[in-house]
Amino acid sequence: MQQVYFDNAATTPMRDEVIDAISEVMKNNFGNPSSSHSFGRSSKSLVEKSRKSIAQHLNVAASEIIFTSGGTEADNFVLHSAINNLSVRHIITSKIEHHAVLHPVEKLEKDSRIRVSYVDLDAKGNIDFKHLESLLQTDTKTLVSLMHINNEIGNILDLKRVSNLCQANNALFHTDAVQSVGHYYIDLQTIPIDFISASAHKFHGPKGIGFVFIKKNSGLKPIIIGGEQERGLRAGTENVPSIVGMETALNIAFKNLEEEIEYLKELKQYFIQKCIAQIPNIAFNGNSVDFELSSHTLINLRLPLDEDKAAMILFHLDLKGVACSRGSACQSGSSKKSHVLSEILKDKDLQKPSLRFSFSIFNTKEEVDYVINVLKGMVIN
Amino acid sequence: MQQVYFDNAATTPMRDEVIDAISEVMKNNFGNPSSSHSFGRSSKSLVEKSRKSIAQHLNVAASEIIFTSGGTEADNFVLHSAINNLSVRHIITSKIEHHAVLHPVEKLEKDSRIRVSYVDLDAKGNIDFKHLESLLQTDTKTLVSLMHINNEIGNILDLKRVSNLCQANNALFHTDAVQSVGHYYIDLQTIPIDFISASAHKFHGPKGIGFVFIKKNSGLKPIIIGGEQERGLRAGTENVPSIVGMETALNIAFKNLEEEIEYLKELKQYFIQKCIAQIPNIAFNGNSVDFELSSHTLINLRLPLDEDKAAMILFHLDLKGVACSRGSACQSGSSKKSHVLSEILKDKDLQKPSLRFSFSIFNTKEEVDYVINVLKGMVIN
Repeated sequence: MQQVYFDNAATTPMRDEVIDAISEVMKNNFGNPSSSHSFGRSSKSLVEKSRKSIAQHLNVAASEIIFTSGGTEADNFVLHSAINNLSVRHIITSKIEHHAVLHPVEKLEKDSRIRVSYVDLDAKGNIDFKHLESLLQTDTKTLVSLMHINNEIGNILDLKRVSNLCQANNALFHTDAVQSVGHYYIDLQTIPIDFISASAHKFHGPKGIGFVFIKKNSGLKPIIIGGEQERGLRAGTENVPSIVGMETALNIAFKNLEEEIEYLKELKQYFIQKCIAQIPNIAFNGNSVDFELSSHTLINLRLPLDEDKAAMILFHLDLKGVACSRGSACQSGSSKKSHVLSEILKDKDLQKPSLRFSFSIFNTKEEVDYVINVLKGMVIN
Repeated sequence: MQQVYFDNAATTPMRDEVIDAISEVMKNNFGNPSSSHSFGRSSKSLVEKSRKSIAQHLNVAASEIIFTSGGTEADNFVLHSAINNLSVRHIITSKIEHHAVLHPVEKLEKDSRIRVSYVDLDAKGNIDFKHLESLLQTDTKTLVSLMHINNEIGNILDLKRVSNLCQANNALFHTDAVQSVGHYYIDLQTIPIDFISASAHKFHGPKGIGFVFIKKNSGLKPIIIGGEQERGLRAGTENVPSIVGMETALNIAFKNLEEEIEYLKELKQYFIQKCIAQIPNIAFNGNSVDFELSSHTLINLRLPLDEDKAAMILFHLDLKGVACSRGSACQSGSSKKSHVLSEILKDKDLQKPSLRFSFSIFNTKEEVDYVINVLKGMVIN
């Protein structure tokens, strides 16, 4: 049976070169980077080479990159330490952030440690900049946490605009860039941001590894404490093979970035055109069809189906070999509605099934044809 | 040049079968275990199979095993959540625990959230059980955190005895078993323990993955929050390849456990005999030479050298291709004295260089001969 993987926002297949790089390190560089002998030093030099190379892609200093076990840990680290160590008492975020941001923020609020403000959103999930600006008019030390690319609807945040507002109002700015690192150019000298979270498995790297960019002299302190690894900011023996794997994945991503962005834009455009041409009354969520305001990596559409059919839709797609999701991966198995769509859609639209299709350079137009045919069959029959 | 790796307590070389298993998963099972489609389900089933198999080795339920990014995260998780969610207000530990336990405990005390008691130790690093018992006479909810095998001196804790004392006094018991899982049989039906931390790279598995055993209905809550992975106890996309790698490493460890223990005991015995025969005035730290009270995996010895020679000792060993350490890996690069030895040795003995040699089944008697010769040269010349 044909298998089509259109769920690259959940996780991506690893590049062969990344698998090879990891295997190589597992075989030949097993030393603990904290050991002073030759086995340790050779591992240490791999870790530092990777750090330097990742830093260069973001145009920052190597010392500003701290390795974590992934995006979720990175988000938790920044949010918790901002409260514990930077005197932040007010967080501005939005209701359509990833749970790795929303849940820590809700917990910190529940523990009465901070005040939380949610910025207003329009029906497409765009933030209201005027509202953001008004929320920033406060004497309370504030952190803004807004994601770069929304993982469910693909909306792109104007980082520069948020960054300017934060600077003008003396607020810190964190962005969960898990969906954009490796898919977009981000120059942190041009756009000053205090903290960025990233995850390797979203750009064809390994699972279980990510990083957080922490602007120099930020004052963050670790949430996982013990040994003095990562300049004292993250204890635990470094995951050397995965760090090298992440570096390799990011190097390849940047080497081909323009070309791959073009390829994915064309694929997404093709997907949209086919949808509109072949599926009557199809609709799109968020900024999905706007190529300036939405990521080339994903699309979120809404099918004109009633609740009975809607309930079985992922099951039917899976039977046809099509992998996509209803919300984020975390929710794909449950019947819970997406918290993102619940926030922006009207009730009648929320009843209809929405699907996220997310692409990688390993996808083809032939796969799009196959999937559109399957969708068409479900809608028309 | 000959290279001898006698620093297996810092980290171990990965078994070929483990590297193969990881590579296989990286190639063929990239799905996100939280996705409901076939790619996700196949990853999910690997994760659950690994969980079940690891649980069986400890004779516990699969639901009691939670995957973490390693031993340090596991320790932090248990200690923080015991305070935040289980009303623990008193921790009993010892001054010779790993920093992944000591530093979180010190921080929690500094934040005035708990009282900390350190159990008395004898000159070999053995805990004073009478003192432990007296510390347990309190109405304050107490957690005892004592490691199973000390990572620097190899002392074995009598888990059963501590467990009995904890049960009799209604205290919780956590053990950092990072140096013992995969090297010892631990049957948690025979010895009731509430929480155990483990790390794969200490038993020939991958770095960046570990687990924590959490006794059913413990009430622990996650420190890394976001998605609902790991039954809501640890957010973040599961590190599928490394989880399978850890399972593979543990399966092999248990398959050959008796045989490998015998091999290592003989190797350690040989090392000790050679030391005593060839190096005048050598001494041993902790219970190193007692095979009942000390792990077969390591030895900690003290050389009769003055401070000048002592300062250069690791450098000279490294030049000769010998990898060992002065304390834990974290300290091996620094001139800081081991916090473990500082606690138990007299000043005059602390001036002399102590070295930890830690073994794996990939080591040989020929390597011991080589190392003893090098040591002898340093002491006699």
